[in-house]
Amino acid sequence: MAIHSVKGAWMRISELAESSGVSVATIKYYLREGLLPPGEKVTERLADYGERHVRRLGLLRVLREVGGIGVEALRGLVDAIADRSTSVHEMFGEACDALAQAAGRRTDHPESLGLADRLIERAGWTGVRPDAPERERLAEVLDVLGPLSLPSDPDSLACHLELADSIAEFEVGFLDPGQERDTLMEQMVVGQVVYGELLLSLRRLAQEHYSSRRFG
Amino acid sequence: MAIHSVKGAWMRISELAESSGVSVATIKYYLREGLLPPGEKVTERLADYGERHVRRLGLLRVLREVGGIGVEALRGLVDAIADRSTSVHEMFGEACDALAQAAGRRTDHPESLGLADRLIERAGWTGVRPDAPERERLAEVLDVLGPLSLPSDPDSLACHLELADSIAEFEVGFLDPGQERDTLMEQMVVGQVVYGELLLSLRRLAQEHYSSRRFG
Repeated sequence: MAIHSVKGAWMRISELAESSGVSVATIKYYLREGLLPPGEKVTERLADYGERHVRRLGLLRVLREVGGIGVEALRGLVDAIADRSTSVHEMFGEACDALAQAAGRRTDHPESLGLADRLIERAGWTGVRPDAPERERLAEVLDVLGPLSLPSDPDSLACHLELADSIAEFEVGFLDPGQERDTLMEQMVVGQVVYGELLLSLRRLAQEHYSSRRFG
Repeated sequence: MAIHSVKGAWMRISELAESSGVSVATIKYYLREGLLPPGEKVTERLADYGERHVRRLGLLRVLREVGGIGVEALRGLVDAIADRSTSVHEMFGEACDALAQAAGRRTDHPESLGLADRLIERAGWTGVRPDAPERERLAEVLDVLGPLSLPSDPDSLACHLELADSIAEFEVGFLDPGQERDTLMEQMVVGQVVYGELLLSLRRLAQEHYSSRRFG
């Protein structure tokens, strides 16, 4: 996508800040960090920004504010979008890895990794790479359940596996393969983060409802 | 529950650190912050700690490490456990509020709040308090979807509502009302946080699987 000005006029950094709702200081920070591509130079001190920049800032804002994703993981996501040598599925894999990293600590405890693999096998998720970092994130969560005497075996988690499967199938089915690579990636990453937060929020509300029915 | 020593012997702060895997410095910090009840004074400089302290430290560790819950929200949870004037359901409500606060920004944008209410109504969650802070958290997430042209109407979110409902019903059904108040609260809070992370991790793995089927 070529950099172009909105309505043919130049967009200065101050106007970009206004359009995107992101402060000039933050925009400069993103430019330094390589999270936002540079504008087209007009003069030595003036650069022209376009809709591509407004969209990228919207993406970064959502990932930071809603997903609490750190700058390190954001760089992984931006690199995955930029690397045009990869297929769409490889790009998604890189995005998954950046999000797994952002999700928190990971373990390499062999027992939990083995349990994670059994869960993935039970769910039939053959498309998961054997070295996907998300396996180690899952293992870290499983690591915590055992000492607290909370169930973590495939039978007890059958309901969680089934629901994760249904929601992912629904969400990936929503993506339109005919769309541009950047748009697909944006939709996938934003969907991952925002609908994930949405799901947790709805689940907390539903828990309050069922707690009131059970203990109210 | 009375404070008692493991195997009848006194447990010093250094032994508590060893049993719980939490450093002496962190234990002292929790004591200062009121997140851990004081031990029973044996002499001016010596306090005796018991299993109750080991369990509380385990709880705090999970909430901080897996859930990324800050000290402010932890205080809300600890206060909810300690306040014995409330019913179990009220205690759960206070825990929900502390977790909603920990989940991130909340909005009071009237349009999004209205949409949040329509979603709750559509799901039939009549047990949700009209002033539950989680409503504002949900509205904040919905606020983000609109400008990104991502669907947020009740029809498009029917699948998410149904899944959140199923998982919450399953998870609350797992709690045993015959159990002690502290144990119930621990199970509810840990379940909220840890199974929430588990669900997100499984969903990310399932998304990789369906992405490979669709784009691989």
